[in-house]
Amino acid sequence: MKELYIKDLPFVTPIKGYMELFGWVKSKRRLKNKIFFDLVDSTGEVQIVVPKGVSNYDELSGILPETAVKVKGEKIRRKNKIEILASDVKILANSSLTISPLPRSEFNVFDSKYSNQVLTNRHLYLRNEKISAIIKFKSKFIFEMHRYFQENGFVFLEAPVLTKLLLYDDSSAFKLKWSDKEDVWLSQCCTFQLESAICSHEKVYNITPSFRAEKSRSNRHLREYTHLKVELAWVDLKDLIKFAEDSIYTFSKNTIINSKKELEILGIDFNPDIFKPPYERTTYDDAVDFLHSKGKEFKWGKSLSTSDEMMLTEEFGDKLLWVEGIPCSAEGFPFKRNRDNLKLTRTCDLISSNGFGELLGTAEKITDEKELLIRMKEKGKTTKEQLKRYQWYVDLRKFGLPPHGGIGMGVERVIRFILKVPHVRDVMSFPRLYGRNPNP
Amino acid sequence: MKELYIKDLPFVTPIKGYMELFGWVKSKRRLKNKIFFDLVDSTGEVQIVVPKGVSNYDELSGILPETAVKVKGEKIRRKNKIEILASDVKILANSSLTISPLPRSEFNVFDSKYSNQVLTNRHLYLRNEKISAIIKFKSKFIFEMHRYFQENGFVFLEAPVLTKLLLYDDSSAFKLKWSDKEDVWLSQCCTFQLESAICSHEKVYNITPSFRAEKSRSNRHLREYTHLKVELAWVDLKDLIKFAEDSIYTFSKNTIINSKKELEILGIDFNPDIFKPPYERTTYDDAVDFLHSKGKEFKWGKSLSTSDEMMLTEEFGDKLLWVEGIPCSAEGFPFKRNRDNLKLTRTCDLISSNGFGELLGTAEKITDEKELLIRMKEKGKTTKEQLKRYQWYVDLRKFGLPPHGGIGMGVERVIRFILKVPHVRDVMSFPRLYGRNPNP
Repeated sequence: MKELYIKDLPFVTPIKGYMELFGWVKSKRRLKNKIFFDLVDSTGEVQIVVPKGVSNYDELSGILPETAVKVKGEKIRRKNKIEILASDVKILANSSLTISPLPRSEFNVFDSKYSNQVLTNRHLYLRNEKISAIIKFKSKFIFEMHRYFQENGFVFLEAPVLTKLLLYDDSSAFKLKWSDKEDVWLSQCCTFQLESAICSHEKVYNITPSFRAEKSRSNRHLREYTHLKVELAWVDLKDLIKFAEDSIYTFSKNTIINSKKELEILGIDFNPDIFKPPYERTTYDDAVDFLHSKGKEFKWGKSLSTSDEMMLTEEFGDKLLWVEGIPCSAEGFPFKRNRDNLKLTRTCDLISSNGFGELLGTAEKITDEKELLIRMKEKGKTTKEQLKRYQWYVDLRKFGLPPHGGIGMGVERVIRFILKVPHVRDVMSFPRLYGRNPNP
Repeated sequence: MKELYIKDLPFVTPIKGYMELFGWVKSKRRLKNKIFFDLVDSTGEVQIVVPKGVSNYDELSGILPETAVKVKGEKIRRKNKIEILASDVKILANSSLTISPLPRSEFNVFDSKYSNQVLTNRHLYLRNEKISAIIKFKSKFIFEMHRYFQENGFVFLEAPVLTKLLLYDDSSAFKLKWSDKEDVWLSQCCTFQLESAICSHEKVYNITPSFRAEKSRSNRHLREYTHLKVELAWVDLKDLIKFAEDSIYTFSKNTIINSKKELEILGIDFNPDIFKPPYERTTYDDAVDFLHSKGKEFKWGKSLSTSDEMMLTEEFGDKLLWVEGIPCSAEGFPFKRNRDNLKLTRTCDLISSNGFGELLGTAEKITDEKELLIRMKEKGKTTKEQLKRYQWYVDLRKFGLPPHGGIGMGVERVIRFILKVPHVRDVMSFPRLYGRNPNP
């Protein structure tokens, strides 16, 4: 088992002057009677000097990038940099990688001219320094979300991916055979299961894959993505907004503070105070008036597009912006309607600046059975078979389901906004995109 | 938003003597000119005394269990117990729940005579105190797993549920349409994606749903379950065993220590030192000899059954037991073979006592391309279409994939073992079981 990582080299005093390193050859140069390797591992890079005397010198002079090696050697200092003067280099796994550009070489991995190459060889380009940094950032981000909710009295409620309850149309969901007789779908949102759990735990959350079978090619849609869902009992929209601001601020800030190296690799200097509450606010109706005043064509009742959002956030100085009161026509059926205007929902969407779009949404949920049935009808949940599926969810309204609401956040969207990468696919290890073979 | 939880009642000094509580009516009694409620929330239970003078006294005297209420009142002490003397009780959500037995009533929720009732009404029985305690325990367990891996330098690598790479037979996986032309499957194990990521991060883990379309009705199989997968570079089986012992001990012990209340509710007194390394060991071959010596019929090459495991662990004093060297015939194709006996794999399964079965498995993975192709052939991955799917995974062996191995753990199995519940379904919020409609 590996004991020593490259990042720790400055701090270790080797036994008898020798140390053992495991890593991959990033590049190789020959000079006079020496071979120079740049050795990388998950924590850094160090130069290895292989003098002629090393027994397999000839073999080593022919190795290609990505060869995995075990190096025994002495820590030396040259021009104020640590190097390893190797006494023994053992090849643990050969490489014949001739892919171009090489994953660990200097190139802009986000450049669209490489996107097909990078996506088709995702299993290799995971080794790219920038992609690695994104994945590490995401790993920390997911942990900080867990930590936030656990420390604030929430229960992680695992909810099934295989479900009969869909938030949106059946046709926009992946369907599969459960048995010879029965179908099942891949979850679009676990709000249904979480809502039922608030009568037990009051505050629940889930971080799980959600699925959309839509034929969308935008740069903020994935067919499989990481979905944070939160549901709280005894709250109204005001509470939800306050809570959403506190939570996204806390876990984003904590991740950013703990990711100095990753942000440096990505060339990102993100001020976490961008997430500091309170955020700017507008209403959907005012937003539509504003768009009209700027000569933009926009039909009331639709969702805001990327370009609509860009115009809006520019007006608010590129700050995070809440848009309150989304019309029923643009929202899912479980969301409560505004009593003073039944065409609007008790919802609020958080829009980021510069076209990075919606980060999260919050909504009060319907507690009244009749209101729910009206909204289900409006959203086309009308067949006998559908009504049967949703029956248990409707029935919850008969059994002491208190005022409640929730938050839904696309984790990749928030990370993309912080790290300023062109496409949500860039923050996925193996993105699942419409129009692409889901392999690798 | 709710500020005060029942568990905090002993510690709060109310403003002007009054406080506000939100919760559900568990039961109700009338006595002379008073109504007594047992009010519950996610943290505890307290008696509410409603005197005749309260304005909606008549309405309150008719309410049913599970009604959600807001209670204003004064904290009083009677017979050394805290009670609330209500001055105002507002019904926030009525209940007409007449299901039997009531979710929060005293009954054995694990008794098989209730299992159909509990599974069909899972959305309501989540309110059961024992089920709640299990879900809370699980929530903490999942967080402690994350904490362990994050604190030990691992990167959380999210891996897709939608995949073309299956560990076992295509026929034992859920298949769905990705597009008009292409199929995709639900992941049985994310080992493939994790293995590719070790060349970048060296140590990766994932906690995600895995899926089995098998027609199995055992008490330790779910069609959708929580799968912990870990993959490490530069390790052999000895390292993996040591690491698996340390990890399961640490996150299990931490969860148990932090779950006093949940264990009390479940009547469980589990000594975390049961997980203290090192564990007992045997080999598969010795285990088979032992079973034969006890007169048990067992065909070499098969997996151990529950009853086989019970006989074995009894022999080892009901301690955790490693069974090393599982035959190739009983293992997935990515597992490395034993050079000294090509019929065996470099694997080790951890068996728990009392028939709770396998908790986790560890395995060295194949790094040699030829060996992998041989094993794929043995496991029936032979069609042209299949070979094309696995091509990128095979190709990894050409590009510096070092010695490595991993751990796979069924999270529900370990929790079931600790909490001693009859069936893995009991540790799922909404279990997905063969032969049952996946709704709710």
